[in-house]
Amino acid sequence: MGGPEIERLIGLLAKLPGLGPRSARRAALRLLQHPESRMLPLATALTEAARAVKPCRLCGNLDSRDPCSICDDPHRDHATICVVEGVGDLWALERAHVHRGIYHVLGGTLSALAGTRPEDLNLAPLLGRIEGDEVREVILALGATVDGATTAHWLTERLRPTGVTITRVAQGVPIGGALDVLDDGTLAAALRARRPF
Amino acid sequence: MGGPEIERLIGLLAKLPGLGPRSARRAALRLLQHPESRMLPLATALTEAARAVKPCRLCGNLDSRDPCSICDDPHRDHATICVVEGVGDLWALERAHVHRGIYHVLGGTLSALAGTRPEDLNLAPLLGRIEGDEVREVILALGATVDGATTAHWLTERLRPTGVTITRVAQGVPIGGALDVLDDGTLAAALRARRPF
Ligand SMILES: [Zn+2]
Ligand SMILES: [Zn+2]
Repeated sequence: MGGPEIERLIGLLAKLPGLGPRSARRAALRLLQHPESRMLPLATALTEAARAVKPCRLCGNLDSRDPCSICDDPHRDHATICVVEGVGDLWALERAHVHRGIYHVLGGTLSALAGTRPEDLNLAPLLGRIEGDEVREVILALGATVDGATTAHWLTERLRPTGVTITRVAQGVPIGGALDVLDDGTLAAALRARRPF
Repeated sequence: MGGPEIERLIGLLAKLPGLGPRSARRAALRLLQHPESRMLPLATALTEAARAVKPCRLCGNLDSRDPCSICDDPHRDHATICVVEGVGDLWALERAHVHRGIYHVLGGTLSALAGTRPEDLNLAPLLGRIEGDEVREVILALGATVDGATTAHWLTERLRPTGVTITRVAQGVPIGGALDVLDDGTLAAALRARRPF
């Protein structure tokens, strides 16, 4: 039906989160009907982003600059590091405008089920910054899941010898909930009500 | 947040049908995390499809061949032409395997509101085929909307002088409903129960 190029396009679109087979077909059709104004610009944007965007060597954020635009911003509070599981959580906190410090992206949580061990997490740059820079506070903004709690406890033990103040987001993260689906108000409340770990 | 490449990618993804801003961000993040295995293959598929896929000069279907693989298939019944509004409707009927003839894609319906007039529709190749080839039946498979009904009546008047048999899909298309969201069974029943117009 339409040849291998169309089948291939629909197959790749259907793998995107949020798009099933039906919406992938609708998206492909919309693109095919506007090759110059929609399809080729999207192809270019994908190629450009693949070329330009890299994980920040300091914090793990995805950015076309390295260090990223957050780590490189002198107006942000570099003494307060908010630790998140993934870049999606960082994006959620940035959209909510609730954190004026910088971030550290772990790239996962410890998980017995998924077999994620401490050495699989992005930790060395965080330790380096705590030891080298004037870091006052590390805010653990991990989801209220079993793995999130395990990771928070492990990180606290790991960071305690450095003498840095460790806090965690407290109120508002629903049990079993992920951070990056919360509304801005809930995220703000959770961050404001953080308490020592 | 992450630079102009990421913002641009999210903006273009958010314009796809079925993807809002939130799912566009999730899709972009998934792609950014797999540049080689997901992002660049999608860019290539888009570029290839934009290059290869064109409307069939005979029926208006989108295909990387012209005439399309349906018009070019000697095993299909070229004496029965199913007229649809758009390529999405053709795809739906093909998925349901309910039509063994060929198609004609009008590219729209007559609409006073949208200002679509007869000269905006893809009609000439259909008239050419009816006059030149041995076409026995034209099945009108248009949505049960005001514009669909208007278009069906207008087409019937337009085709009557050719002496071709004109039928329309009858049962199963819900009032106000579009064709390309129906299940296969409903489509099959609608096509089987077609009656003279
Ligand atoms: Zn950074
Ligand atoms: Zn064709």
